[in-house]
Amino acid sequence: MSPVASKRIEKDLLGTLEVDAAAYYGIQTLRAVQNFKLSGVTLSHFPRLVIGLAMVKQAAADANRALGHLSAAKHTAISTACARIIQGEFHEQFVVDMIQGGAGTSTNMNANEVIANIALEAMGHEKGEYQYLHPNNDVNMAQSTNDAYPTAIRVGLLLGHEALLNSLDQLIRALAGKGLEFGHVLKMGRTQLQDAVPMTLGQEFRAFATTLGEDLQHLKRLAPLLLTEVNLGGTAIGTGINADPAYQKLAVERLAIISGHPLVPAADLIEATSDMGAFVLFSGMLKRTAVKLSKICNDLRLLSSGPRTGINEINLPARQPGSSIMPGKVNPVIPEAVNQVAFEVIGNDLALTLAAEAGQLQLNVMEPLIAYKILDSIRLLSRAMDMLREHCIDGITANEAHCRALVEQSIGLVTALNPYIGYENATRIAKLALDSGRGVLELVREEGLLDDASLADILRPEHMIAPRLVPLTA
Amino acid sequence: MSPVASKRIEKDLLGTLEVDAAAYYGIQTLRAVQNFKLSGVTLSHFPRLVIGLAMVKQAAADANRALGHLSAAKHTAISTACARIIQGEFHEQFVVDMIQGGAGTSTNMNANEVIANIALEAMGHEKGEYQYLHPNNDVNMAQSTNDAYPTAIRVGLLLGHEALLNSLDQLIRALAGKGLEFGHVLKMGRTQLQDAVPMTLGQEFRAFATTLGEDLQHLKRLAPLLLTEVNLGGTAIGTGINADPAYQKLAVERLAIISGHPLVPAADLIEATSDMGAFVLFSGMLKRTAVKLSKICNDLRLLSSGPRTGINEINLPARQPGSSIMPGKVNPVIPEAVNQVAFEVIGNDLALTLAAEAGQLQLNVMEPLIAYKILDSIRLLSRAMDMLREHCIDGITANEAHCRALVEQSIGLVTALNPYIGYENATRIAKLALDSGRGVLELVREEGLLDDASLADILRPEHMIAPRLVPLTA
Amino acid sequence: MSPVASKRIEKDLLGTLEVDAAAYYGIQTLRAVQNFKLSGVTLSHFPRLVIGLAMVKQAAADANRALGHLSAAKHTAISTACARIIQGEFHEQFVVDMIQGGAGTSTNMNANEVIANIALEAMGHEKGEYQYLHPNNDVNMAQSTNDAYPTAIRVGLLLGHEALLNSLDQLIRALAGKGLEFGHVLKMGRTQLQDAVPMTLGQEFRAFATTLGEDLQHLKRLAPLLLTEVNLGGTAIGTGINADPAYQKLAVERLAIISGHPLVPAADLIEATSDMGAFVLFSGMLKRTAVKLSKICNDLRLLSSGPRTGINEINLPARQPGSSIMPGKVNPVIPEAVNQVAFEVIGNDLALTLAAEAGQLQLNVMEPLIAYKILDSIRLLSRAMDMLREHCIDGITANEAHCRALVEQSIGLVTALNPYIGYENATRIAKLALDSGRGVLELVREEGLLDDASLADILRPEHMIAPRLVPLTA
Amino acid sequence: MSPVASKRIEKDLLGTLEVDAAAYYGIQTLRAVQNFKLSGVTLSHFPRLVIGLAMVKQAAADANRALGHLSAAKHTAISTACARIIQGEFHEQFVVDMIQGGAGTSTNMNANEVIANIALEAMGHEKGEYQYLHPNNDVNMAQSTNDAYPTAIRVGLLLGHEALLNSLDQLIRALAGKGLEFGHVLKMGRTQLQDAVPMTLGQEFRAFATTLGEDLQHLKRLAPLLLTEVNLGGTAIGTGINADPAYQKLAVERLAIISGHPLVPAADLIEATSDMGAFVLFSGMLKRTAVKLSKICNDLRLLSSGPRTGINEINLPARQPGSSIMPGKVNPVIPEAVNQVAFEVIGNDLALTLAAEAGQLQLNVMEPLIAYKILDSIRLLSRAMDMLREHCIDGITANEAHCRALVEQSIGLVTALNPYIGYENATRIAKLALDSGRGVLELVREEGLLDDASLADILRPEHMIAPRLVPLTA
Repeated sequence: MSPVASKRIEKDLLGTLEVDAAAYYGIQTLRAVQNFKLSGVTLSHFPRLVIGLAMVKQAAADANRALGHLSAAKHTAISTACARIIQGEFHEQFVVDMIQGGAGTSTNMNANEVIANIALEAMGHEKGEYQYLHPNNDVNMAQSTNDAYPTAIRVGLLLGHEALLNSLDQLIRALAGKGLEFGHVLKMGRTQLQDAVPMTLGQEFRAFATTLGEDLQHLKRLAPLLLTEVNLGGTAIGTGINADPAYQKLAVERLAIISGHPLVPAADLIEATSDMGAFVLFSGMLKRTAVKLSKICNDLRLLSSGPRTGINEINLPARQPGSSIMPGKVNPVIPEAVNQVAFEVIGNDLALTLAAEAGQLQLNVMEPLIAYKILDSIRLLSRAMDMLREHCIDGITANEAHCRALVEQSIGLVTALNPYIGYENATRIAKLALDSGRGVLELVREEGLLDDASLADILRPEHMIAPRLVPLTA
Repeated sequence: MSPVASKRIEKDLLGTLEVDAAAYYGIQTLRAVQNFKLSGVTLSHFPRLVIGLAMVKQAAADANRALGHLSAAKHTAISTACARIIQGEFHEQFVVDMIQGGAGTSTNMNANEVIANIALEAMGHEKGEYQYLHPNNDVNMAQSTNDAYPTAIRVGLLLGHEALLNSLDQLIRALAGKGLEFGHVLKMGRTQLQDAVPMTLGQEFRAFATTLGEDLQHLKRLAPLLLTEVNLGGTAIGTGINADPAYQKLAVERLAIISGHPLVPAADLIEATSDMGAFVLFSGMLKRTAVKLSKICNDLRLLSSGPRTGINEINLPARQPGSSIMPGKVNPVIPEAVNQVAFEVIGNDLALTLAAEAGQLQLNVMEPLIAYKILDSIRLLSRAMDMLREHCIDGITANEAHCRALVEQSIGLVTALNPYIGYENATRIAKLALDSGRGVLELVREEGLLDDASLADILRPEHMIAPRLVPLTA
Repeated sequence: MSPVASKRIEKDLLGTLEVDAAAYYGIQTLRAVQNFKLSGVTLSHFPRLVIGLAMVKQAAADANRALGHLSAAKHTAISTACARIIQGEFHEQFVVDMIQGGAGTSTNMNANEVIANIALEAMGHEKGEYQYLHPNNDVNMAQSTNDAYPTAIRVGLLLGHEALLNSLDQLIRALAGKGLEFGHVLKMGRTQLQDAVPMTLGQEFRAFATTLGEDLQHLKRLAPLLLTEVNLGGTAIGTGINADPAYQKLAVERLAIISGHPLVPAADLIEATSDMGAFVLFSGMLKRTAVKLSKICNDLRLLSSGPRTGINEINLPARQPGSSIMPGKVNPVIPEAVNQVAFEVIGNDLALTLAAEAGQLQLNVMEPLIAYKILDSIRLLSRAMDMLREHCIDGITANEAHCRALVEQSIGLVTALNPYIGYENATRIAKLALDSGRGVLELVREEGLLDDASLADILRPEHMIAPRLVPLTA
Repeated sequence: MSPVASKRIEKDLLGTLEVDAAAYYGIQTLRAVQNFKLSGVTLSHFPRLVIGLAMVKQAAADANRALGHLSAAKHTAISTACARIIQGEFHEQFVVDMIQGGAGTSTNMNANEVIANIALEAMGHEKGEYQYLHPNNDVNMAQSTNDAYPTAIRVGLLLGHEALLNSLDQLIRALAGKGLEFGHVLKMGRTQLQDAVPMTLGQEFRAFATTLGEDLQHLKRLAPLLLTEVNLGGTAIGTGINADPAYQKLAVERLAIISGHPLVPAADLIEATSDMGAFVLFSGMLKRTAVKLSKICNDLRLLSSGPRTGINEINLPARQPGSSIMPGKVNPVIPEAVNQVAFEVIGNDLALTLAAEAGQLQLNVMEPLIAYKILDSIRLLSRAMDMLREHCIDGITANEAHCRALVEQSIGLVTALNPYIGYENATRIAKLALDSGRGVLELVREEGLLDDASLADILRPEHMIAPRLVPLTA
């Protein structure tokens, strides 16, 4: 950037390049940056992936030290470097694009090089003096991208899982709270957008909470099931070639401790090296949550439609002026944004699915896209759920009188009266109401089919919204 | 099936099989039937594909005869067989599953065998006496599956295109007719499901007609652009290996005459053998039509929601009782079915896209799925559009008084009054209306901001629904 | 059909229609047949859905009888009818298209009508004499489509689940069998389609078995988790309006016994009426299996590519002649068909996802498409897995000598020699081999870097395919 | 950001907020930033969209000035502001997230506010002194988001189209160049991954150029067809309410001149306000290009597989070291990245399709996602095509001798000899070659079926790769 920035020269199999002297990454990272100018989204956008990489490097270093392959000095320096990255430092040094060829090699080398250079400085050397500590020989010791990278993705997902669950949980609580708050608001239920039978607005919001509650349980259950089996130690293709036979067990044990998640070695390392099934199912579950959020937001937009020519049963809090040309217009901007996030997550699931299907033989080279899409979906869903809760759900109010008026003028009310006035009367009254534009209750009262006390009894919310033994003599 | 059915023995490279004596197909078709028990949807479900195959075989036979490679007797017999298939006979003999391996070889052989056996009978021989006329050597002469099959798919699509356009055109006319019929019905327009500004119901239906009219033009234009270039004559991989140098030109000319479509040879036969781009774009266009139909049906369902607790601006014709438990309920079943067809077409487009992407080197072996999905989408769309027109659009009626009442009680009306009463008054009135639950017109009249004559003038539909020069002194 | 077929007249809210006298279905089914001419795939294509419907009707009748709402005579007649349908009779009477509007009402009424008419005959009445036993009042008693239909879909899926698991399990066993059979075949592993390091062909096939084995476990676990909670008893929208308070518990208990599956009532019936999450996740899991099958089939096609200009490590059994124009060509038609099934399943998942997202308020009217797509995916996957096992996996043979030759001439072999000859030698030898076109082993022998005994030891399969402690003095 | 940053107070319908004094955007932009923390991708990531917005504002100001609604001073100030944005200044002030609710209102207001504040400064006022020039009343005069925003998207796409076409065109030239360079390299064609018949490597690359050339033509043709019809002047819902009747024509004419593209008013403004069909079809076309690129990259990876255990017909240029654990490994990282971009584009197309389907009544509120996804797809494709050309295609070399050797040892060669040695000999030789592992040519020579001169003649590339009249006496 700076015209007078000093440079250092680094070298790899393909030759030499000038690396900015201030950069902690090295030549292989730089090659990747030059090769892959694609999404513009760098690794640093996903801090938990960066931390996951550092934890894997730490675990490998611990195992290599324990087995005597890494000197105490190098181990200390690498540990210092990993710790600083885990604490959030140096993330801006993870500059490779999330979309990249090479099955994650560039991501892995970005981590190796940054850690090596931090460690070198800790040892009193200059960045780039790899003769004292080498990105490949030391930081990447006993690893291949093909085991270190998928393992880091899993660790990254596990580290972020609590936050996702938390966003979801808070949203559920907000919806359940509204379920309680609106428990007394009688309204018409609708099927096929047609008037059906009465229910409460509380039941409607409780159902939102329930349906997301099921997703919370599934997500809680699926993450350990899908993400704690790691292929660290499999090296290039899962045979563990050239690795110390004792390495895999040690490294995974260390990683479990470092990450705080119950990681275990995959039973079949050949399979684990190329299989993307865990991500496909996890993304499928995220897609399910997206579908549910979209349905809920569609409902919120329907229920708040109007104010005069729509359903208008609820009011969403105003978040921004809706229109300059139409005075007073306020729009359901928050649910609309959630819908779009849901569509994005569904699109991400498709891109991920295509990437998973494209694996060949002993590796899936499309794994960078898989990591990108799943991390993006999680981030989008978390943010969308927080936004929905804070800026919309918490401020929803009910138009109770309007809800009740809609019930009372509805033809569907006749369904509730059916057991008391008989099917023939019910059908006749329904038809009469539709033709005349008058209300069912009004007609029933007018004809003296039920007295006011009975009607009041039947129409009490608690009687309308649950099974009830019909009196034999109505 | 029948325990005493007589059989004939046929033979191929892999050995012999017993073929039912009554069957016109032969051993290779039978192998395919045994191999591929998948979708349960056979070639015969798509008559135009079967006819397309017969036309290709006829064109090839004509060219081979003209070049002296096929005897007059064989040519006559093959022509008889093809003519009968083109007229609709023997379609039940096309028994292979639409989903099949082999890049369409089984479909091509099904055609070759059926034509050979019909021709053999026409020559006075028994079915299976291939020494007199051979499915491969004679019917398939100078062809490979890799050129005959993609060409037949294109011919099949072109043959069916008129019917698709016709269904779409009739639907457009029905919608445009309602546009005229409802031209005087003033109603509120809605943006973001919130009350916006007035329009007519006629404008709304005319917009449906317009948007589908654009698709009609695109579909008309795309079909010749995408489907008339054929790779017939390219044989195995597009090099035309072992074919007579004069064959390609002759065969394609004949096929153009037989099919009645202006077919031309592909400029780059290598490319044309493996490329599925034409189908991807054509399916993308079908997807677009599906998206529009789904949006229109969503609108129809919204506009007819109610009758009492929804928008209720229009009535869809009742097609079937809606509910036993809820007397008098009638549902928008026809638009609902169209929505589902649209989702199916979008799913088909995805399956087709995946199949197109999976081509490798000189061939796309997934072409059977591509043919299946595109033919299925066309059939579904045609049927859905006919259903929508006949069973829904034609019978739609407007609730004119209710539409007008919604306009008059709407806050959005204030936007139309804005230039006459000034922005400050408009905003104050809007707020007052919302808070009090009263109507904008009522308040304007009450405050004497506008007299009845002016109000009547402003609210005339023709003044509400188009740009208008605002009087300088309101 | 028949010009002289006798007819009976039936009547519903919309008027009367002539029903074929032989038909067990009635007027509402007929209306649906006339309304929905779409996919051409009728309910009868999915026998387990039909059986699921009959089981639901039986359970409801049992509960209604126990509560005294249904007479013994009617109960007996309905039971007879349901039993016959469960045993496979009358399925051809389920004639409604799988794609339909009305949220499944037509499917539910098809079942109600067929059962009523079978029952009427059992009672000695004529079909259509609904005064003695009514499709709605008796067969559909205490049910709404909105609870009976989703429950029947779940029962149908549970009934078919064992078959799906069985197909998968058999395929896994076949793959595992090949894993054992090929355990001694040393071959090159490939990452990014580039030569990597050695492994055995047995490891490769065992990985296929492992990866599908994980899906077997997920599918086993997910089905009860997702499908055993039913909303039977919720009636129209989940409030159970007009139902006997004791009905739900009884009906679900009976259904559990009848179906043999541990069904339980949904905790939140409002939620359960509209939520499609179970199907979204189940389909997402099916998609995962499809993705894995596709990847495996891609690998099989790669490994059997050639015979001379491809990889040619394995031979797939010949299933049908490959080409008339190219003598002796045999194609991997079975894996190719599986790929296409996988794409179809992915497309189905998308259509289902769109349908799930389109639910509104108290119901998802797109449920018929959801049922169709998930049943179709299951059927396709089962058939594809059986086909793959029988017609492909079981007959695969290995080209052992060729596999070994590829290892020995590979540059990747140098990775295994690396710890013994040193990194510098390894790099030099690799470069020399690439430039000269000679083999790594040949060069190592020529230079005397390792003697034949050491080489033989290093290259023993068991030493190449797992971690190994490297001798300190190589 | 800065703790002591000075602030200014701005006010809208919902109240007041503190805006950073240095910011050119205002309160409504700030509200949007606070509301929508979603993708992290701001408007400024797509400079041509920002320029499109400025051009629309300029055109509207011009029309309003011409009609006398805007003073000369305000027009001059707005023009200055728009010009600076069009030249690339102030883009960092476009800070709203690409994913947003409100149908683009926040994007439109971001433009209105930035332009107003630049203009205010040009007029000698302070930012925020809207009494002198107002974001809504002046900059947004006669516009609604619902016409200004979709128009700006179209302008933005048209402005960027040339660059997309250019990237595609350069890639085509590079591929065509390789087609010429490799015109003499004889190789085996493969169908279904099985050896088929000979062709040249030049034909293979020319086919890549041809297939993308077709896309270039489609993209050239589609852009004006789909994107030049704009709804500017339709205001809120297409009725043009409150606009000067002369405004639309003037504004669109000005925009055509400013943008340099032949823009015309949409014929049906109601339709044009809500319809997203143009974007659906355009994205469908981008998806087609992505599918083709993915297929080409799959082929490149297959053809360069090896070096010893794959096909190895071509060499891709080495871009980065492939593996630390496997010395000398170089991977096809560039095509791998293109595959992933293609999957992303297909996922984008799905998200866009869902958004298009979700339009309701007079507006599609999901348009921000549509704009985002289509702009993202175009950017990704352009970058991926440049990357593919520069870093891969240009440097590809052929392994000519290996290609020829594969042809000569192939069984498929027998297809070319067939007309000369007869079908019986051909089949016998093919079988003998397969069983013995020997070559076809070797066996033909050994048996004296053809002399060396004849063989040499038959095997000349120009004779192998096109139709050829077979000598009567071979």
